[in-house]
Formats: sequence, structure tokens, C-alpha cells
Amino acid sequence: MKKTDYSMLIDFYEFTMANGYFESDHRDRTVYFDLFFRDIPDNGGYAIMAGLESVVDFLENLSFSEADIDYLRSRGIFSEDFLAYLADFRFTGDVHAVPEGTVVFPREPLLTIRATAVEAQLIETYLLLAVNHQSRIATKASRVKHAAGKNRILIEMGARRAHGVSSANLGARAAYIGGADTTSNTLSDRLYGIPAAGTMAHSWVQMFEDEYAAFKHYAELYPDMCTFLVDTYDTLKSGIPNAIRAIKEVLVPKGVKNYAIRIDSGDLTYLSKKARNMLDEAGLENCRIVASNALDEYIIRALLTQGAPIDIFGVGERLITAKSDPVFGGVYKLVATEEEGAIVPKIKISDNPDKITIPHFKKLYRIYDEQGSAAADLLTVHDETIDTKKPLTIFDPVHTWKKTTFTDYSVKSLLQPIFKNGKRVYELPDITAIKEYCQKEMDSLWEEVKRFDYPHQYYVDLSEKLWNIREELIRRHAED
Amino acid sequence: MKKTDYSMLIDFYEFTMANGYFESDHRDRTVYFDLFFRDIPDNGGYAIMAGLESVVDFLENLSFSEADIDYLRSRGIFSEDFLAYLADFRFTGDVHAVPEGTVVFPREPLLTIRATAVEAQLIETYLLLAVNHQSRIATKASRVKHAAGKNRILIEMGARRAHGVSSANLGARAAYIGGADTTSNTLSDRLYGIPAAGTMAHSWVQMFEDEYAAFKHYAELYPDMCTFLVDTYDTLKSGIPNAIRAIKEVLVPKGVKNYAIRIDSGDLTYLSKKARNMLDEAGLENCRIVASNALDEYIIRALLTQGAPIDIFGVGERLITAKSDPVFGGVYKLVATEEEGAIVPKIKISDNPDKITIPHFKKLYRIYDEQGSAAADLLTVHDETIDTKKPLTIFDPVHTWKKTTFTDYSVKSLLQPIFKNGKRVYELPDITAIKEYCQKEMDSLWEEVKRFDYPHQYYVDLSEKLWNIREELIRRHAED
Repeated sequence: MKKTDYSMLIDFYEFTMANGYFESDHRDRTVYFDLFFRDIPDNGGYAIMAGLESVVDFLENLSFSEADIDYLRSRGIFSEDFLAYLADFRFTGDVHAVPEGTVVFPREPLLTIRATAVEAQLIETYLLLAVNHQSRIATKASRVKHAAGKNRILIEMGARRAHGVSSANLGARAAYIGGADTTSNTLSDRLYGIPAAGTMAHSWVQMFEDEYAAFKHYAELYPDMCTFLVDTYDTLKSGIPNAIRAIKEVLVPKGVKNYAIRIDSGDLTYLSKKARNMLDEAGLENCRIVASNALDEYIIRALLTQGAPIDIFGVGERLITAKSDPVFGGVYKLVATEEEGAIVPKIKISDNPDKITIPHFKKLYRIYDEQGSAAADLLTVHDETIDTKKPLTIFDPVHTWKKTTFTDYSVKSLLQPIFKNGKRVYELPDITAIKEYCQKEMDSLWEEVKRFDYPHQYYVDLSEKLWNIREELIRRHAED
Repeated sequence: MKKTDYSMLIDFYEFTMANGYFESDHRDRTVYFDLFFRDIPDNGGYAIMAGLESVVDFLENLSFSEADIDYLRSRGIFSEDFLAYLADFRFTGDVHAVPEGTVVFPREPLLTIRATAVEAQLIETYLLLAVNHQSRIATKASRVKHAAGKNRILIEMGARRAHGVSSANLGARAAYIGGADTTSNTLSDRLYGIPAAGTMAHSWVQMFEDEYAAFKHYAELYPDMCTFLVDTYDTLKSGIPNAIRAIKEVLVPKGVKNYAIRIDSGDLTYLSKKARNMLDEAGLENCRIVASNALDEYIIRALLTQGAPIDIFGVGERLITAKSDPVFGGVYKLVATEEEGAIVPKIKISDNPDKITIPHFKKLYRIYDEQGSAAADLLTVHDETIDTKKPLTIFDPVHTWKKTTFTDYSVKSLLQPIFKNGKRVYELPDITAIKEYCQKEMDSLWEEVKRFDYPHQYYVDLSEKLWNIREELIRRHAED
């Protein structure tokens, strides 16, 4: 077995095309592909990039076993030369990417691949899958955490409703990057160091002769990590009173101060207010309240608007599946080829102007205003630089009369070199660093970009040079 | 490495509860858990069971490595006895399950587990994940195929928008069970024998000097599997004319009769009608039309209602993520325990009557009318049998005055023994057999159950004996 067992997660047409390039003049042709998305899910104002670590793992380990080759041979359409090439396959191209945890916007290259046409095509499916899935979940988690607020804890607890093992594991990782503080999924902790936590289910309460016995037993066994699930029978009449009794009889005598109750059904605003009163009256002001049950950013916002005194949100199925809008529509498009060493920009035309691609091997700059807030992004041709001592004028790629000039500003180049000639040149940050970086990225955004309803549309503009190249290509196609 | 590397895909609270049972009187207690769901996604009339093969694989291979044990030990809350038990863990329980491809309804046990409390708890997360994910996708695929009709081909092509590797692979498998005819994902073919297919992307067309050259080259290389993607530049003005030319100049002279064009953007009704006319006028009546672009059952139904002459539907992101409703809400609830060898039914009460569980170790019967159509399902206590020589009266569990009596009928017991004392006693059917069985299951359903809008609500009733046991338990709880 090879290190990754998903090398063949390649759409079949990538093989037919790759074999076709291999058997044609395009065998050694160098091409550039951009991975980008067009629309932000949930009509949001921003997205969070995730999935790069998976991409790196895939590219470093992509190879084909004898069984893979035998399978392809059995299809009867691939040349033996091509199969021999696959048997020795290693990725040898260059990759630039936006680091995980970066705030990103539509039409920006999240990944740029420079490789032979054959290689670039074979890696398409997995690159899209990894970035689409993980960016989607990181973005969702960022929104949920934004609704909950920095001072409240967000637990990712969706494993049982995840779309398979990797949806649960990498979903928990992406959620952690985007804003979750902890996960229910133990394997995510083992694999990626996402702190796993959890206490009891209804079955625990049902297993004992009564609810109090269940709580008492748990408190005696795990005094330092008690969250009593109070809705197995009747939240207000039995669950909370029994939790209070267990806290007072078991935890308080031990000097434990950190405990909570969890409400998993019913009207969470009503019940959390009642619970807060009951706990406070019992002198347990420090007992925290956890709420769960099909939550997402909208419900959390509504709960907090109604004054629900919830300290910790457990979010399951609607985060791990991004239920409200589960598709992150990243695409992978040819943007340039190399002809005798020169980069030739390529465009894909569409009747829908929004679907016309931005050609060329590009750089992506973020422009920060004098307060350090992200003000706009600028796409340039790969060889352009920005002299921040001079004013910078950017203009809208569609409505070109819309211009903004920056004088006191700074810029950051977002695309980092990840692979050079197939060799990784990027050190993968650890998960804590990615999470902290993502939080800083969020802090650099205007609130107007982060709101859920009609967020400000962040500017992603083209340099004049890039704009002219694109217009010229569109014109040339229109004349054909 | 063990055979499965996802043994730790277990919510952390399963470990705290399991350790708690292990350290209490419940260590060797035998319990029964049912896995069932409450609501059909998309407000549909039925669901398709899938995920059993994954469940079997998990249970046959569930074990914990030294590194897993070390991780758990590092958490500082588990007893050494419990860790030693985990180090030698094997699943030793009984499992009954509804076979993959079976039509299922809310409140029916899809799986029933009889095991020690510790074992039953540890397997919860993965069992739910596998059945929830795969049943969701199989159900969605069934609806999409139902919209397309038996005579049109459904291609699953969502890998790039899947939620991780297993979402792509097992999603393709579930989609195949439910109704997809083929997949784009090569790995699904390698792993599960789901026929993988595919031809070209826009990048192929862009790579050549012009569209005709791209088509011609492809036709020469793969004459027997040509589907020309016609919307890279202009579908009607260039794509279809170039495809016609390539067919006539390359394929027709070779005597090839099986080819197609694919339209991936624009108004699919308008373009497919225009395309059909252009192809027919060119004498290519046998050229089939493939349509793709964010399709689902609703869009396919609309296209066909409008008379779009589409032969093959390629369905991607909306099938592989079940975008319209990605959550299959399966739950896992304690339904009985054994006390000195006797089965004691257990219930979970809720203020919401729909959430009160159906207690006891049960059997699930499907009742077929004289035409062989599925008429109703009946849940009974595990030791009840049905004598089909006598009339059978079933009554609604909520509105008990609603009764139906069957005289000329047959029954099928749906829950099959899968594991007995940890040993598998069930032979996993091959994927083709599962797919064919699923089609027969669909054929046994009334059309009224299969429609998308306000489908007939299929009856799932309780035997009188089971109904009385449940009422008694509810009454007893209410009196507490």
C-alpha cells in the first residue's frame, strides 16, 4: 500500500485527457491552472481558505500502484507508454497557494498550478475536492463563531451526520481553523490535534435507575469535566433540579468550580433563561449553560438577540455539512500556457460575463488602509510589483469608471510558493498557528464584510496591465 | 497500521460513557440500541437504506492501536482496566439490519444492536455516520433517477464538490445503489466496482488551436467513447457545428454509431432542442445529448416537462452533497436492556410526542397487497410472528381509530441477522445485486409514495402487543 490510498480519486476524464495530451504535441507543454470560486456560499461577504495541507499531502504522495495501472489497462483505451509514465509518476510542477486560514474572495486564485498539461489535469479532481470541502466548512465555522461571539465557546459535534470519515475528520479540522474551539470527534484530535471533548448522551441517563443516579455517578467519576445533559425526561422539572443536586452534593464539596448543564431540545431561549434563574437561585452562578440541537449562525444570532444566557454552543449537522449551502463552487481553469518559454495568457469565454475567466499567471495582493484593515485585493500579472511609496489607483474590472486611490497603505502578497519543480518549499504551519492566523485575518476585515445580510462586497480589482490583457483576449475571441 | 484507520472516529463522550459503564455495575450489562430516523429528507415519501457494508467493515475491524491507547491515557481520565480492555477490544455483539437498497421509512430500526453497554456506545458515532451519509445519498440518487426516468442515463459526477474522499467514494457507491448508472470517480470503480466514465473538460478544448482540432483529435483517439463538450466558446454557433463535423469526418467513416454531445451551461431546454434539430438535420439522429450544470431532481423534472430532448443527465454537486437537504437525521437510541436474561423495554420520553421512542427489541415486517405492492410496514415485538392465513389488522400508533385489515397479503421480515456474538453471519451482496434489489424495491412502491410534492405518507404501524407495551411505559413515566 502506498502512503495515500486515494491516488485514484481522479475523475475518469482526467485520464482520458491526460492520455490524449501524452499522445499528442501537448505531452510536454507547460500550462497554468487557477483554482478559484465565483460565489460566496450563504450570500456571505467572505470565505476562509482551507485544504492546503491535504493538497500538499496528495501532491507529495501521488503515485499509481500496479493494481491501478492494471485497472487502467483493463479499460482498453490507454497507451502502454502512458501507463508506463503513470507507473513512475511523481508530481514535478510548481504550486502557489493562499495559506490556510486566509480570508479570500471570489475570482481570486487560491491555488495556481504550473505543470505539464498531463500533470495539471490529473490533479484537478482532488485539489478541487480538498479546497472546496474544507474551505466550505471553515467558512461556515467562521460565521457560526462570529454569531456566537469571541467570548462564547463553539463545539463542533457533527461527526455522526458527516458525509463520511474524511468529512468528519477534515471537517472538524476546517471548523477549528474557522472558529470552532473544540470537537466531539476523537479521531480529529489523534490526527490533527483538534482538542476533542464530550461528556454524556441521553443513553447514559437512561442506563441508570434514575436521572439523579446517572448525574451523581458521572460527577464522582469525572468531577473536573461535568456537563449534565438535562433534557432526557423533563428539563425544568427534573433535569436541572437533579443537576443542581449533583453539583451541590458531589462537586461543591470537592471544591470544583467548572461545570455546566446542556440543553439539547425544546425552546432554547426559554429554557436557558429558566435554567439561568434556577442555577443562580441555587448559588451556582458559575455553572455554564451549553445549548445544542440543529444550531447554525442564524439560530445562534436569534437566541442571543432574544437574550438567551447561553455560554457554549454545540453545533452539529448544520456545521459539518454546511447544511444551508453545502457546495463551495471552486473551479479549476486553464489561464496560460508556455510557448517556447514565454507565458501565453488563455481565457475561457462565456455568454455570462461573470463566467469569463481572468487569464494569465498572476499575483494576488491585499491592500490595507492606514488602520490596517483590508480595503481591497488586487490581481496583477505575475511580474508586477507595487511600490507602496507611490499612490495606488485601482478600478473595478466591470464598471471601470469606479476608481479608488490609496495613498497611505500597505500591501501583502497572498500567494505563497508551495512546490517548486515538484519539491515542497513551504513549511506547513501547525494547526494552532493556522487558527490564530485566521482569527487575525477576521480581525482585519471590516464588520460590514462579516455581516450575514447584504454584506459589503469587498473589492477584487485587476491591475491596468492585467485588465488590458484580458480585454484584448475578449476582443480577439469576439472577432473570431 | 490496522486494516481500518478510522477506529477512533468515535465521539469523545462515547469513551467517557464507556469507561463509566466499565467502572460501574453496567460493565457487562446487555443493551439494545436501534438506529432509526424521524423525518425523510426533502419532504420525500421514502428513503433508501445504505451504509451497511461500511458498518460491517467497521465492526469486523474495530480495534485500538497502542498509539490510540496512549492518546486516551494522556487524557488522564480513563482507568487502566478500561484501557487494557480497549487494547484487546473486539466487537462481540449481535447486529440485525435492513439490507442496503431497501426502501425504508421513519421510525423503523435500520440497525438493531445487541451488545454490552460499553460496546454499543463505542460504535454509535461511526454507525450513524455511515448510515446517515450513505442513505442520504442513495435516497437523493433514487429521486434524481426517478425524475430522469428509467430510460435516461444518470451520471454521478460530483467528486470535485464532495465533502472529502469518503464522501466522493462512498457517495458514488450510494448513488449507484439508489439510481446512478455510472460515476466520474475512478477510485469508486477501483474500490467498489461502480462503472467510471468520462470524456473531456473545457480545458481539453482550450488546449488545442481551435475547437474543431480538439474534437477531431479526441475522436481519432477514442472513437468509441466520444462525448463532445460543446459550450467552451459558443454552443450553437461553434460547439455543435464542430461536433457534427468531427462526427461526420472521423466517426461516421469508421462506422461508429454511439456518440454524444454535452451541454454544460446556458438554458438547457432551449439549447437541447436547438441541438436536437441541428443534429437531426445533419442526419445524426442517433447522437445523444448529455446535459449537466447544477442539476437535481427538480430541475430535471422541469427540463423534461418542457420537452428538453436530453438523453443523459450528469449530476454533480447537488447529488454528492444532497444540497437541498444534506442531513439524514438518523439517531441511535437505547430501546431495551437485559436483566437476568429477560429483555426489559426502555423508552425515551419527550414533550414532543413524535420524539418518544418505540421501545423493545423488535421485528420489522413489510406487508404486500394482492398486487405485490408495499402497503404498510408493521413493527412487532421480536418474538411475534404473522400468520398470513389469517386476516391482519394494523392500526395507526397515534390515531388508533385508524385501522386497516388485510386479507390477501404477504409479508417480508426486513431485519436480517448480520452479526451473532461478534461473528458475521451475513454474506455481503455484490454491488450489482444491491442495485437491482433497490430497483425492485422502488418498483414495489406506489407512485403516490414516490412523488416529490406531498407524497402519500406510508403507514408504519405497531403490533397491538408492542403498542400496549409502549403505552404502559409512557403512562408509567407520566406518573413518576
